[in-house]
Amino acid sequence: MTTAQIGVVPSFIAGQWVTPAAGGTEVLDANTGELLATVTKEPLDVAGAVAYGRTTGQRELAKLSLHERALKLKELALHLNAHRKELYEISFKTGATKIDSMVDIDGGIGVLFTFSSKGRRELPNSNVILDGPTEPLSKDGSFIGTHIYTALTGVVAQVNAFNFPVWGMLEKFAPAFIAGVPTIVKPATPTGYLTEAVVRLMLDSGLLPDGSLQLLSGSARDLMDHLDYRDVFAFTGSASTASKLKSHPNVIDGGVRFSAETDSLNAAILGPDAVEGTPEFDAFIKVVVNEMTAKAGQKCTAIRRNIVPASQVDAVIAAIGKRIDERVVIGDPRVEGVTMGALASLEQLHDVRAAVEDMLAAGGELAYGRLDAPAVRVAPEKDAVAEQGAFMSPVVLRWNDAKNPIVHSREAFGPVSSVIGYDSIEEAVQLAAMGSGSLVATVCTNDPGSVRALSLGIAGHHGRVHILNRETARSTTGHGSPVPHLVHGGPGRAGGGEELGGIRSVKHHMQRTAVQGSPNMITALTGVWHTGAAQQLAGAEEFGGKAENVHPFRKSLAELKIGDGFASPLREVTLEDITAFANETGDTFYAHTNQKAAEANPFFPGIVAHGYLLVSWAAGLFVQPAPGPVLANYGLENLRFITPVAAGDSIRVTLTAKKITPRVTDEYGEVAWDAVLNNQNGELVATYDVLTLVEKTDSTYANWEG
Amino acid sequence: MTTAQIGVVPSFIAGQWVTPAAGGTEVLDANTGELLATVTKEPLDVAGAVAYGRTTGQRELAKLSLHERALKLKELALHLNAHRKELYEISFKTGATKIDSMVDIDGGIGVLFTFSSKGRRELPNSNVILDGPTEPLSKDGSFIGTHIYTALTGVVAQVNAFNFPVWGMLEKFAPAFIAGVPTIVKPATPTGYLTEAVVRLMLDSGLLPDGSLQLLSGSARDLMDHLDYRDVFAFTGSASTASKLKSHPNVIDGGVRFSAETDSLNAAILGPDAVEGTPEFDAFIKVVVNEMTAKAGQKCTAIRRNIVPASQVDAVIAAIGKRIDERVVIGDPRVEGVTMGALASLEQLHDVRAAVEDMLAAGGELAYGRLDAPAVRVAPEKDAVAEQGAFMSPVVLRWNDAKNPIVHSREAFGPVSSVIGYDSIEEAVQLAAMGSGSLVATVCTNDPGSVRALSLGIAGHHGRVHILNRETARSTTGHGSPVPHLVHGGPGRAGGGEELGGIRSVKHHMQRTAVQGSPNMITALTGVWHTGAAQQLAGAEEFGGKAENVHPFRKSLAELKIGDGFASPLREVTLEDITAFANETGDTFYAHTNQKAAEANPFFPGIVAHGYLLVSWAAGLFVQPAPGPVLANYGLENLRFITPVAAGDSIRVTLTAKKITPRVTDEYGEVAWDAVLNNQNGELVATYDVLTLVEKTDSTYANWEG
Repeated sequence: MTTAQIGVVPSFIAGQWVTPAAGGTEVLDANTGELLATVTKEPLDVAGAVAYGRTTGQRELAKLSLHERALKLKELALHLNAHRKELYEISFKTGATKIDSMVDIDGGIGVLFTFSSKGRRELPNSNVILDGPTEPLSKDGSFIGTHIYTALTGVVAQVNAFNFPVWGMLEKFAPAFIAGVPTIVKPATPTGYLTEAVVRLMLDSGLLPDGSLQLLSGSARDLMDHLDYRDVFAFTGSASTASKLKSHPNVIDGGVRFSAETDSLNAAILGPDAVEGTPEFDAFIKVVVNEMTAKAGQKCTAIRRNIVPASQVDAVIAAIGKRIDERVVIGDPRVEGVTMGALASLEQLHDVRAAVEDMLAAGGELAYGRLDAPAVRVAPEKDAVAEQGAFMSPVVLRWNDAKNPIVHSREAFGPVSSVIGYDSIEEAVQLAAMGSGSLVATVCTNDPGSVRALSLGIAGHHGRVHILNRETARSTTGHGSPVPHLVHGGPGRAGGGEELGGIRSVKHHMQRTAVQGSPNMITALTGVWHTGAAQQLAGAEEFGGKAENVHPFRKSLAELKIGDGFASPLREVTLEDITAFANETGDTFYAHTNQKAAEANPFFPGIVAHGYLLVSWAAGLFVQPAPGPVLANYGLENLRFITPVAAGDSIRVTLTAKKITPRVTDEYGEVAWDAVLNNQNGELVATYDVLTLVEKTDSTYANWEG
Repeated sequence: MTTAQIGVVPSFIAGQWVTPAAGGTEVLDANTGELLATVTKEPLDVAGAVAYGRTTGQRELAKLSLHERALKLKELALHLNAHRKELYEISFKTGATKIDSMVDIDGGIGVLFTFSSKGRRELPNSNVILDGPTEPLSKDGSFIGTHIYTALTGVVAQVNAFNFPVWGMLEKFAPAFIAGVPTIVKPATPTGYLTEAVVRLMLDSGLLPDGSLQLLSGSARDLMDHLDYRDVFAFTGSASTASKLKSHPNVIDGGVRFSAETDSLNAAILGPDAVEGTPEFDAFIKVVVNEMTAKAGQKCTAIRRNIVPASQVDAVIAAIGKRIDERVVIGDPRVEGVTMGALASLEQLHDVRAAVEDMLAAGGELAYGRLDAPAVRVAPEKDAVAEQGAFMSPVVLRWNDAKNPIVHSREAFGPVSSVIGYDSIEEAVQLAAMGSGSLVATVCTNDPGSVRALSLGIAGHHGRVHILNRETARSTTGHGSPVPHLVHGGPGRAGGGEELGGIRSVKHHMQRTAVQGSPNMITALTGVWHTGAAQQLAGAEEFGGKAENVHPFRKSLAELKIGDGFASPLREVTLEDITAFANETGDTFYAHTNQKAAEANPFFPGIVAHGYLLVSWAAGLFVQPAPGPVLANYGLENLRFITPVAAGDSIRVTLTAKKITPRVTDEYGEVAWDAVLNNQNGELVATYDVLTLVEKTDSTYANWEG
């Protein structure tokens, strides 16, 4: 990491570290103003990076399956975890406190863990993801349609903000990597040295396929010039830069997939019930102060507008001030007791102060805090340079006119928040919507009716709604913290993008394509068996079984193929069977026990067999009792009962291997079997998927003599 | 409809028909050049339409649930169906043959039927759609997250192309209407009189909520000026107009959700196996000629590039020419025997001829057809005006250089198609991708390996892939026909939009919002019970049941509430029970019958109870035998077995009403019950959803004495 700490921050392009000649933009320690490094102003080989990603990166990533790439994320996370201390040391220089660094560094590593786990749990172990059900498109079943996701064929260019140099990169990298799309990272200059340190660790781990991660430490203003419809440009930063990028001909005409996450005027709404003295009021104050001071308020998700009952405005302002006074210590985060660090740079400090001054001039009132230099705690030997630190006091603004446009449009990207009053829930919704689209809003109330009215009222304008009440005051992950499981992004002013959200964001790096064809061809294309495609059945010859076919339960994953299956003979269901099943299970529901009542039922001809009897018997018809590679039936999906089975009817089952998912970390995998029950007339009785665990090779019971 | 046939085509704005003063752009019969109507050039009250949609339209649509709106689509479809003949008469004037009109008119009505049915089958009967699973966000379960879709709070402005005046409107209207978002239609001038006729029928039906559908018959160039992030602008047309719209500040900075579907250079790829003499070759030729002549080739999905094995180029060109000679009769579609009508206007004819001339100049060779006026069949009395018709001969171009850029970039929007040769599958994929993003490609081969290589190779560049082989030659819905079930749209040159695709497109008219909070609050917000939220349980007191609570199976939908449930007592499972179940069902899988083999299994402690035994017994524990409002158990979802149950263990079940979906057309509805099985130690044994049909009121068995 020495390179990053002195000298020029290097780039990693086309498989090589590139360190430009000395000089460039100076990067300073946010707390002390000391020179840390420079970032080159010379052009970087952006075209080379894009070309390398599209060729080598695409090719090397495609050699791995979705699960294999997901597993690598876990390995990367473990590797980064082992180097957390080094990263914390660097992070302090950005003005981040230890808790701020946890959000950035541990939060970023956490994204890798979550995506790794979700990728392997929720995706197939191949490179084609099926989307939604199969659609029959012809009456005879010979023409069907479905949707697939496949990796985009280009690269993801991510351009990040200065405030989360680690998390900001990893939250975009993780889904792109699983999808199989190479990433080119362009960090923000003031904190890019920390990003560089993480990228270096990731590359040094040896885990990454060649070309899957590149780094541009520099301005890279021409990045968009090299992209087209195959690529994603994922931007985090100011609305004005987003606007410029979005106007680029390669977006307008070239079809670059542009996703923006810009800061927004996020609101926290205190419910009408959540007055002073309630647990909700206290939880609200805690969240607001936390959002003002974490990262010194430099968070695109921070609360800028506190929308509270008009009667509570004074109480809210007083309580925020009191909590800040009691809890907040501004200073160098390396010094014991400091809870709020410096802004990222003196330029930031200047911008935030200017924004507050504009707001004061437009009618805001300084209800808490100050605009001159606050008292700060620094290490004694640094006292002389404390004035070089970008420190700022938290500021609360009060507004007589809740609809003053500047409250809803001007953002001070620092420890600044406004308090406005409302008179009705409708007005609260209206005020929240005046932000013209936000990343997140907190709704703080213990009244279910208010939760519903406020949350549904504002949902159309928000990417995330965080509901806070006494039940969640302790367990909430917080207003301002995107979690990898949930979408991060918002409409309108918030940029209109969607990041994170688990597998949703993997799919944002893939093309959804409708595919139509015969069941055989859709099976060939997707690797998943579709109804109507060829089967290789063992079992009853009269129902398609062939003597030469082995029962599929005798096959390990090494032998089993999509379409392998088993056809059972018919088994008759008698009234005695139904009655016995009712008595033994206790399921004496009238449709199985009372002929007259069953006849009156609009769906049944009279007494019918239990659905549970049918699926239990079906298992009896298809299982192979002897020990073998099938280890367990761990579940069942999409069971639907179609034609009722009355006494005297017979049933049979056809079981077909539909989807095979070998696990990358175990000696077995999942097999989903298509199960179809028919009656003696060939009518459809029930359909479902049987979920089993099957060994990769027949190891446990090979040569079993039990 | 008289207004539309002579005089000025009127608009419908803010609840009123508006007919501008005479004059404006003249609209001619495509076949005869006769004057049909004029379209005003004066500005329309666009601002009024947008404001009316956002207020009245939003309010009136919100009074209905997703199912209620879906049902209205079916009623609208039936109403339009009853007026098909009138619409066909008008449609002829646009140059459409009867088959062309079927695609447009019946196709449009079909979209309404499909969306109506899908909306009621696949969506909840409320105004909040849950997206994806619940995510636990705290270890104690008190903080969870999920995603919801709610209607966008603005309007959909749809701007359509001239070629499908009915379908083009209805395919965009249907999903917006279900979502609850008002539509403003701006049809293309040359065929807007047909759109007007359909809008009038829809409004006259009395089925539409006020403000849910408005019509702008005019230029409406300022439409985008009135929109913001709450609105959708859904454009179909040329890439150049799309570019202009996408550059509008209200898109770039205002966040208007802009969706474009532009014509593209769609390909049809003939597989290496599909040589002359195979059924695939014949099917290919049939599809190509159909796409050249349907709507006189004026389809954004038409095949512009035929990518065939180099050895097959001559055979393909010859076969296309032969089929056109045998089958295609150009003329006035009102005349018997005519199979291909005029282009939509003389301007179109001029543009298409110019495009072909450019292509010839750039290296193309006229392999079939002619550029001067073709022989046409018209009614004898119209003979004099035949030269006023915009008739054109089908044209096939041959190219020596398959990579000539003009083949992959210049579109002749008429009956024009190019044939190029490839030498390898990789090259075929490369050529298809040179279209820079297309709506659809046909892959014609009977070889599963080629299907996989070609389809997955081009998927990233396409919105739809149509696989054609002998199995689907008869049943295919066609290369060029979007179906409402599957996505229509494509990346890059195709505009980057997604239309249709069933419920996917309903969601494109909604905002996805992550919501986080306690189970109680997420339940209040979504109307769906979430694990951990309050329950009102009947049944066993030791497991939370209360004597005052009625068994939920005794409640009709009128009485049942989310969270109502039942807690059973424990029931012990003995080895005898397991053995008896194995013998009766035939499910003698070794885990239930062979202690030694079961012990060797990595998941089981020894012999365990069948999963089917557990769910059967659970039903026995929770059902109420007496006839009542619960009519049937029609299925089961998401069954997972977690902790195995050995002999001597006991199980109990807790059943909770999770989701209630009253049907709009029946006297009953669906209730999904959350089922949880625990053992005597409180460990989780299994979880699943039980799906039942329950009466709205207890009508069948009220006062039953069976």
